Amino acid sequence: MRENEDQNIIKTSPGDNVGIVSSNDFNIPFGQKVALCGIKEDERIIRYGETIGRAKISFVEGDWVKASDISMPESPDLQSIPLPDARPQDAATLEGYTFQGYRNKDGSVGTRNILGVAASVQCVAPVVDYAVKKIRHELLPRFPNVDDVTALTHTYGCGVAIDAPGAKIPIRTIRNIISNPNFGGEVMVVGLGCEKLPPDQILSSAPAYSGGEKGAGYYASLSLQDKSFRGFEEMVRGILVLAEAQLEILNKRERVSCPASDLVVGIQCGGSDAFSGITANPVAGFAADLIVNAGGSVLFSEVTEVRDAIHLLVPRTIGPEVGQALLDEMRWFDEYLLQGGADRSANTSPGNKEGGLSNIVEKALGSVVKSGTSPIVDVLGPGERIRKKGLTFAATPASDFVCGTLQLAAGMNMHVFTTGRGTPYGLSQVPVIKVGSNSELAGRWFDLIDLDAGQVALGDKSIEEMGWELFRMILDIAGGKKVACDRFGLYNDLVLFNPGPLT
Amino acid sequence: MRENEDQNIIKTSPGDNVGIVSSNDFNIPFGQKVALCGIKEDERIIRYGETIGRAKISFVEGDWVKASDISMPESPDLQSIPLPDARPQDAATLEGYTFQGYRNKDGSVGTRNILGVAASVQCVAPVVDYAVKKIRHELLPRFPNVDDVTALTHTYGCGVAIDAPGAKIPIRTIRNIISNPNFGGEVMVVGLGCEKLPPDQILSSAPAYSGGEKGAGYYASLSLQDKSFRGFEEMVRGILVLAEAQLEILNKRERVSCPASDLVVGIQCGGSDAFSGITANPVAGFAADLIVNAGGSVLFSEVTEVRDAIHLLVPRTIGPEVGQALLDEMRWFDEYLLQGGADRSANTSPGNKEGGLSNIVEKALGSVVKSGTSPIVDVLGPGERIRKKGLTFAATPASDFVCGTLQLAAGMNMHVFTTGRGTPYGLSQVPVIKVGSNSELAGRWFDLIDLDAGQVALGDKSIEEMGWELFRMILDIAGGKKVACDRFGLYNDLVLFNPGPLT
Repeated sequence: MRENEDQNIIKTSPGDNVGIVSSNDFNIPFGQKVALCGIKEDERIIRYGETIGRAKISFVEGDWVKASDISMPESPDLQSIPLPDARPQDAATLEGYTFQGYRNKDGSVGTRNILGVAASVQCVAPVVDYAVKKIRHELLPRFPNVDDVTALTHTYGCGVAIDAPGAKIPIRTIRNIISNPNFGGEVMVVGLGCEKLPPDQILSSAPAYSGGEKGAGYYASLSLQDKSFRGFEEMVRGILVLAEAQLEILNKRERVSCPASDLVVGIQCGGSDAFSGITANPVAGFAADLIVNAGGSVLFSEVTEVRDAIHLLVPRTIGPEVGQALLDEMRWFDEYLLQGGADRSANTSPGNKEGGLSNIVEKALGSVVKSGTSPIVDVLGPGERIRKKGLTFAATPASDFVCGTLQLAAGMNMHVFTTGRGTPYGLSQVPVIKVGSNSELAGRWFDLIDLDAGQVALGDKSIEEMGWELFRMILDIAGGKKVACDRFGLYNDLVLFNPGPLT
Repeated sequence: MRENEDQNIIKTSPGDNVGIVSSNDFNIPFGQKVALCGIKEDERIIRYGETIGRAKISFVEGDWVKASDISMPESPDLQSIPLPDARPQDAATLEGYTFQGYRNKDGSVGTRNILGVAASVQCVAPVVDYAVKKIRHELLPRFPNVDDVTALTHTYGCGVAIDAPGAKIPIRTIRNIISNPNFGGEVMVVGLGCEKLPPDQILSSAPAYSGGEKGAGYYASLSLQDKSFRGFEEMVRGILVLAEAQLEILNKRERVSCPASDLVVGIQCGGSDAFSGITANPVAGFAADLIVNAGGSVLFSEVTEVRDAIHLLVPRTIGPEVGQALLDEMRWFDEYLLQGGADRSANTSPGNKEGGLSNIVEKALGSVVKSGTSPIVDVLGPGERIRKKGLTFAATPASDFVCGTLQLAAGMNMHVFTTGRGTPYGLSQVPVIKVGSNSELAGRWFDLIDLDAGQVALGDKSIEEMGWELFRMILDIAGGKKVACDRFGLYNDLVLFNPGPLT
């Protein structure tokens, strides 16, 4: 990483004409770009060996190259990207790595043993929250093998135009979330009774994990408008009766030794800075390669953050069909943004820019690094369930909570989240490992960041060393070790992606 | 209401050729439609004196007229509705009704004394929730005049394309919610630090209620990425320090006698049935007229539920400008639905139909009844703040939580919610009075429904009697009396209306 002679400037690729300031000793702020040679007006600005824009003014060596002085190039033209030839998927080569997981009847593996209580519609969310608190206090202590009970609530209501083309995304997301491996196939759905998407419709397409009988702790459901419930307390009692039956079954789950090939790791980034692309994301990418080499599954996402690097990703797909599917997701999102009067430039946040990311091109180049170098074996539409081992692109918006919710629906059992500016992101359904891109953040947020990838920028550790460290941490945490956000119970709400209208 | 001879069939208007079954003694289910005379194929089906569709088959007197046997008419053509002439607003005529409210410096009146802790972005929501619990347990007991502390969190994140035309709606909604009269101008905003909509931008346009100094308990704010916070517990301490200063000020608020003209009542319905339009909604409409006659403000909403009755509403506006604004909101929503591949038929839920509402035309005719008979003095776009006394149409989707969130942003200090099928809806920011449309529901949900308007259908009370009862209940509850959802703390999440795309 430290290819430049000046130990305080990080150069990513040999041909780069800008570097990143990694010290506070300069006139240029930490994380910002410095010209490594003279750059003339209209000349290309090169980082990661790729053009991130053109110079609006001339720079001499050592000048601060600000975001406002770089013009943004056009997005890669989707039509002009050639599709790759078909090739066989690589065999797993990394053996002997295991974690203690909960094996489900369908073969999937949970990393936690959680009772999920889902809401079919937001109307019932407060009742579900009330019941979940009661379950946690009154029932859970009797079932020591169950880690937690969590409310799977969301803002879906009858306002979602259920027959609109876009509505299929929130609907399949709700359906697939309840089948996440961490719930062991024993999820409950609480409905209202007059909603458009009642519990039966949610459950009808759910894969059957458990061999149990319906109604006997197997995908149990009830509706609050059921005439047998007289008043609120009877509704809550009804939920607790179902929960107890589910907990009996979940309590019999036991951790067993599982190969690393049972991991399904969702990777995303949020609150990125200029270091994300040279520390945290390459470390995550190295760990992603290890997981794929061990026969496991990795999901990467965030359409607007890969769109400008799509010419680098299509050649990595395992054949023309997967390549085309990747281009199709990009095209769908281009049109979705256009219809709403926005474009990819809407992605970069003020914090990204302050952190040294000039535009979405630079952000994208640093973002795709977290996918590692493995072939892309499959592409999922938003909210679809994972189908293959290996590296999958799961199309999602870049919004942290929306991406996390969709990766949950895809079936991830571990989540790696890289951040440079810092965000207290967490999920109650799946462990979230937060990787900080710089040591200043990791030190300041010592109790919120799980791994300090900033050590790479300081030259203390290599990407390879930290990649292995993250890989081992994933296995440990998959086996039951807690993460930072568990300490304080900091969990974000699920947020559904609904491109359709509300009525 | 009981114009028909048969005491078990309710006819709404003299010219109706269908009535509603209000007893379980028939072959036709409770709430469904019965032919009051022979109706030939293709003849108009008339309810509320309006055409709700055409008969697909012929009926003889006493036949069950099912939803599936009625074809839906076209929506009223917005071009062809004439605008009314301008006319002066009526003076208030109802005097002497008061409630005990909290008067704010800007003249608005709170019905509760609540510390609102807002999140600028969903990233910080779990930290805000954590801090709010701590404030409730550690600080609130020392401030006995403060009713509660509530987290104003939402799913807005940097994924919202902030410059897209549709994004102005969630942004102004967040800005206006913090100025709701119940927070007394002492709201706090917790930000992250790298977000697109930081606390300063939220606060910059907020009306100044309090005369206090900024930072001294007046619209206080902080950001978690602030370098002075070392770790999570210091962030939480930072929030508690601000909260304590706010609570000191809020604790000095005192209830004083306020005229009914200080009420701002948001009315909506959810989980409607065929009785909603003949019991709960007319009762709400009668109370709405009383509030307007007393010089107060009433908001009604739900575009898709007034769209098919718009030809009845435009003539009620106080002049061509307001009439045009009403038509413009309808047109905007028509286009919004069309763009998403949906139309107004997406509104009616399966429960609506089972409850006897054949289609959106019948639902709309029964829905607008809750606006009463007052002139419409103003029209607000989604998330805009109320500007006038009298009856205002605040454009919102019909989704309960989205409508409630937008009415909160408009500045309501009381909420009336009518329901037929039953929903446990509640808000923590403003008291919600739930009015049941039928006594079967009100009896079964005895601890969740505040007022049983089904007594009208049973002939026990008139709409006028129950309208007065609701009006007095609004004054009592505005003065501090609790509602059903307060008993169990059942409060729905805020849900922002974002017609723009996510990135």
